[in-house]
Amino acid sequence: MQWTQTFIPTLREDPQEAEIDSHKLMLRAGLIRKLGGGLYTFLPLGFRVLKKIENIIREEMDNAGALEILMPALHPKEIWEKTGRYISMGDVMFKLQDRQKKEYVLGPTHEEIVTSLAAAELRSYRQLPKTFYQIQVKFRDEIRPRFGLMRAKEFIMKDAYSFDTTWEAADASYEAMYKAYVRIFKRCGLRTKVVEADTGAMGGNWSHEFMVIADSGEDGIVECESCSYAANLEKAERAQPAPKIWENPVKPCELVNIPGHSTINQVSAFLNCKTEQLIKTIIYIADNKPVAVLVSGDRDINEHKLARKINASSIALADETTIQQVTGAPAGFAGPLGLSIPVYCDIGLKGIKGGITGANKKDAHILHVDLERDATIKEYIDISTVKDGDLCPKCGKPMHEKRGIEVGHVFKLGTKYTDSLGAIYLDENRQQNTIIMGCYGIGVTRTLQAIIEQLHDKDGIIWPFSVAPYQVVILPLNIHHQQTITIAKDLSAELQKAGVDTIIDDRDERPGVKFKDADLVGFPLRVVIGEKNLASNKVEIKRRDSANFILENISKTPETILNIIKEEGEKTDNLHTVQGI
Amino acid sequence: MQWTQTFIPTLREDPQEAEIDSHKLMLRAGLIRKLGGGLYTFLPLGFRVLKKIENIIREEMDNAGALEILMPALHPKEIWEKTGRYISMGDVMFKLQDRQKKEYVLGPTHEEIVTSLAAAELRSYRQLPKTFYQIQVKFRDEIRPRFGLMRAKEFIMKDAYSFDTTWEAADASYEAMYKAYVRIFKRCGLRTKVVEADTGAMGGNWSHEFMVIADSGEDGIVECESCSYAANLEKAERAQPAPKIWENPVKPCELVNIPGHSTINQVSAFLNCKTEQLIKTIIYIADNKPVAVLVSGDRDINEHKLARKINASSIALADETTIQQVTGAPAGFAGPLGLSIPVYCDIGLKGIKGGITGANKKDAHILHVDLERDATIKEYIDISTVKDGDLCPKCGKPMHEKRGIEVGHVFKLGTKYTDSLGAIYLDENRQQNTIIMGCYGIGVTRTLQAIIEQLHDKDGIIWPFSVAPYQVVILPLNIHHQQTITIAKDLSAELQKAGVDTIIDDRDERPGVKFKDADLVGFPLRVVIGEKNLASNKVEIKRRDSANFILENISKTPETILNIIKEEGEKTDNLHTVQGI
Repeated sequence: MQWTQTFIPTLREDPQEAEIDSHKLMLRAGLIRKLGGGLYTFLPLGFRVLKKIENIIREEMDNAGALEILMPALHPKEIWEKTGRYISMGDVMFKLQDRQKKEYVLGPTHEEIVTSLAAAELRSYRQLPKTFYQIQVKFRDEIRPRFGLMRAKEFIMKDAYSFDTTWEAADASYEAMYKAYVRIFKRCGLRTKVVEADTGAMGGNWSHEFMVIADSGEDGIVECESCSYAANLEKAERAQPAPKIWENPVKPCELVNIPGHSTINQVSAFLNCKTEQLIKTIIYIADNKPVAVLVSGDRDINEHKLARKINASSIALADETTIQQVTGAPAGFAGPLGLSIPVYCDIGLKGIKGGITGANKKDAHILHVDLERDATIKEYIDISTVKDGDLCPKCGKPMHEKRGIEVGHVFKLGTKYTDSLGAIYLDENRQQNTIIMGCYGIGVTRTLQAIIEQLHDKDGIIWPFSVAPYQVVILPLNIHHQQTITIAKDLSAELQKAGVDTIIDDRDERPGVKFKDADLVGFPLRVVIGEKNLASNKVEIKRRDSANFILENISKTPETILNIIKEEGEKTDNLHTVQGI
Repeated sequence: MQWTQTFIPTLREDPQEAEIDSHKLMLRAGLIRKLGGGLYTFLPLGFRVLKKIENIIREEMDNAGALEILMPALHPKEIWEKTGRYISMGDVMFKLQDRQKKEYVLGPTHEEIVTSLAAAELRSYRQLPKTFYQIQVKFRDEIRPRFGLMRAKEFIMKDAYSFDTTWEAADASYEAMYKAYVRIFKRCGLRTKVVEADTGAMGGNWSHEFMVIADSGEDGIVECESCSYAANLEKAERAQPAPKIWENPVKPCELVNIPGHSTINQVSAFLNCKTEQLIKTIIYIADNKPVAVLVSGDRDINEHKLARKINASSIALADETTIQQVTGAPAGFAGPLGLSIPVYCDIGLKGIKGGITGANKKDAHILHVDLERDATIKEYIDISTVKDGDLCPKCGKPMHEKRGIEVGHVFKLGTKYTDSLGAIYLDENRQQNTIIMGCYGIGVTRTLQAIIEQLHDKDGIIWPFSVAPYQVVILPLNIHHQQTITIAKDLSAELQKAGVDTIIDDRDERPGVKFKDADLVGFPLRVVIGEKNLASNKVEIKRRDSANFILENISKTPETILNIIKEEGEKTDNLHTVQGI
């Protein structure tokens, strides 16, 4: 390709619309342009990268035995009503009508659609297992689309769905996808961290997220540096810490009046103590019944964890009336002492002596609380948010908090969808059973941006060879010098013949402009052809990810470049041996 | 691939939902399944064909110098308002709102979007010409989605847009796309007819449609078998026929009362004459002024042609009040004699003697009309519908009417969109000029179905090698016979290595079932491996498009198959020399 024949509208300045580096660079390097909030056009270079990522995904999915299909983006509303998600997905789904007033949604994901297909077509154990996948446009009505492709209204996703007869077979399908994901992200040149994750709106039994560690990431995660444990903060657990002994021996309980002070910060300021000395008591309605939940004053309750740990299918903060009824006091003064409803306590409070709680009486708190002595605790469970320094639930060593970009997510769904949509198969004995499902997503357009977020410097993008729009940029310093141009074209032709994507920067621009753009767009290899070096039959070869360059004989240049690319390819091949689980 | 590892749910019976052969076969061969009206899922085999068609299109677009991009499917409403098409496209556009009540449409096409991009990015003659294309999902709220992928609510289109500085350059871009289209359809194995077409909702100056001739086609076309002329009925012209002389010499005009009879059929029945002896007079409002339009009683007026020929930007039938005012009579009795408004007459009536017209008086007609003698005609122009037997406008020979499926459409748009959206470039003299545009569409999913509509027999699909889901099906008669299976696998491996897509029908089914499915799905080559032929070291090779088969030595089978495929490829290569224009 020649630069003047394609379309690479690079920008000198950071566009105002972009907040994070990868978004700025996608605009500056001419990969995308904005059409509206959360809506982007892929220009030729951006499109080339997108296709390369898609092809890596396709190869790995096919190798893992998944079958590519393509489902509609426009879905009749009724299918989503069958699983209850027409309501539970809420405003994130775009809704519309046709001219006959029939109602539709734009698919934010495809569990309902693929499960309807499975219900109609997969009827015998002999047709199973099957894993279907598609690479397709998705739509989500984000409250606040931002960061370019990271959180867009329209984006491309690879979504796969496995259908199995047994839980063991479903585990094998899950593992095959997990391993494929490990390979996909490595082949894309990404360092990802696999973390345990909450199943959220998708439901199901278990899930892992593939995270690209980045300060701009929207997800918080913790990871243990001693063992392999890592988890999304929504899901993260922790080991029980050492008991907090604020007094030893602990004095008898003492009622103290703190008029008008009810928040943790007010009370700790008034008493001049740390917030973590306070025992926060929150009243929830879990499956229509009130429960009290205790957590250290410096932490919050993770409601996902809470619901899971106490086996509640719905959970919500109690209203003022219920609090008054259950504790005998207005909100802000609840405490565990003397409550007649179940009291669940976070493991962080196990063994606390000398804690401070609400007194279940307006404007009053109780000092010198020894929970085990003074309160009736139904169960100590891990229900608080986790933070930097907490202990690993697997090995007990401290964990660290980081930010991540979720690029992939795998779920063991179980029978949540197959039950709702009647996906039943007949087994060897002609007995009816529900098909067991998994689902597996990769944010394709988000992956593109995550690569840039992870691989860039102040001058621009540093593409991995595997997904670079062109692997080699050939940069003739003087396009009016005939020998320069002939050598550029010959080199390009020879490399293209060997399967290497090359682009010649044939613009009539100053070398400085071309060097800057080559760095900005981030081609992995740059070959500079200048009259000075040509005098000694040499050209300059430089990797984008290194400051050094080599002078190479013209005749040896193709071989040298092919060797560099081959070595990169072997690095990727070796990645195939990485064990994901 | 092995049959049991993929997913090919063939059906024995014709599905009730399908009306035409290609739709039935897509369902029966397990290529697609219906999700809702006009919404289809592509199953693995259908998806493979789709990708092969897309790749042919992509190669030819790239070879023609077009640059692949990807634009959003969701468009802010405002962009469509700028060209007036938010209103003029009417209900065919799906409309929706996001949670902030901002309004969007789902793109039925992308002229507005790509022209906005051009307006923002293409500012100098040095950046031109450029042709962008995408292969993308489109949405149209069809009144009556039908015939499977032929008229769907969601479908895949390849849409390309050229941007040029001059009309000559725009012609060259148009011609490049036209030639690419000729190659694309030939490579897809399709016989297409290129016809002149109306520009319709797209606007612009000129257009051609690529039609697949088929009785089930939704478009009517005429073609001249003597010269190259062919056109969509919406656009078709005809040469002036011989004058209709019903009397010679013609008598003086005579008023005749025909009480209560006003329609063509009533009057011709009453007078016992042919409908074509009647001169139909229709009053139109053209750009707010009344005009009379004459056409033979056996024909209709083609309003597209009429508007174009009389240079009217809007045209509509006059209401009862206007007719009364202009003719002095109620509707049904208008005639050209004595009218004071402009009278346009179809060329089919030029020279008519002895015609019959309304008398501009209730219940009265006039006999013995000689138009040239009796009426003041502003202009004789070609404004009627064209039909079988009409004379070719180029060579004067009779034309024939056929039905066609529109698979491609190329338009010279001119400056319709670039004017509305301000796509201006600076020329060599730093003068501002409007960019000149063309647009070029291929219905990708429709092309898939059109191939089936054109290439099938009573037993199933007959895929061309170029787009077949698998080029070779290997059919072991007895999967429990070890030698049979070994030979099937070896043959498959050897063919795959040579780049041939093969599938082994490894199902434990009766041979009859496998033969029927191989014909139904329509793999171009079938290799049957049976114990009887194996005894003499032979297998049976049969083309789907022929009744004959050959027995070939096992060792020579790969070579024979590769030769057949090579010959097919050469046929396609030769197609590259076909001149489109």
